[in-house]
Amino acid sequence: MSDLDPSLPWLDALKWDAAGMMPAIAQDEASGRVVMFAWMNRESLQESLRCGNAVYWSRSRQRLWRKGEESGHVQKLKSVRTDCDGDVLLLAVEQIGGIACHTGRESCFFLELQGDRWVPVDPVLKDPKDIYAK
Amino acid sequence: MSDLDPSLPWLDALKWDAAGMMPAIAQDEASGRVVMFAWMNRESLQESLRCGNAVYWSRSRQRLWRKGEESGHVQKLKSVRTDCDGDVLLLAVEQIGGIACHTGRESCFFLELQGDRWVPVDPVLKDPKDIYAK
Repeated sequence: MSDLDPSLPWLDALKWDAAGMMPAIAQDEASGRVVMFAWMNRESLQESLRCGNAVYWSRSRQRLWRKGEESGHVQKLKSVRTDCDGDVLLLAVEQIGGIACHTGRESCFFLELQGDRWVPVDPVLKDPKDIYAK
Repeated sequence: MSDLDPSLPWLDALKWDAAGMMPAIAQDEASGRVVMFAWMNRESLQESLRCGNAVYWSRSRQRLWRKGEESGHVQKLKSVRTDCDGDVLLLAVEQIGGIACHTGRESCFFLELQGDRWVPVDPVLKDPKDIYAK
């Protein structure tokens, strides 16, 4: 992979994959925890910057996914970085509610490999029934 | 996406993509910085666990990529996590040399979006010529 060319317009400098997608990593600015991984396309990145909250692209539903639209656990966008070759995004976010995962945990990365098992090692902070209840 | 089934054998519980790949995020355990993003297949994950250093799968070269094999900047594997649906890996690593990026920086994520430009915001810790010189 060649390095990102910073002389190009910022959106074109990024290397979108064949489907127009790019991986996006969300890291909580306060705790330093990597809280989520999702995908973005041009539209979702531009919309994130416009509205100030992380907006991903749902590949399964083929539509914009405004993180927190049901749970209220929005991610306020603090900064956006990309890597040396410009094909991954790293979002610094303020995770509202302190919960990114639909299981009620701070981070989606709560399963640790211990021996030959995946073990949940982080506490559930809020019952999902209370997060998604209307 | 359905949640990971922890009753399955750990390697089969993971959801590999159609090409047998999975995104892998490397986070430095000491600094908390996300230092790199790459891809793994079953073989590279198993080899990482066997040898104790991060081994990725190079999609461009179609072979195992032993991170640091040229630079010496290996990543000692401290723990492996996956996310709620088991389709992304998060590696906690000790980044030997304190440099993950081929540009001589701590992290590959050194480009920050400022206005309409990608701006390098992290210092070069070592000249790449001195990293890769033989």
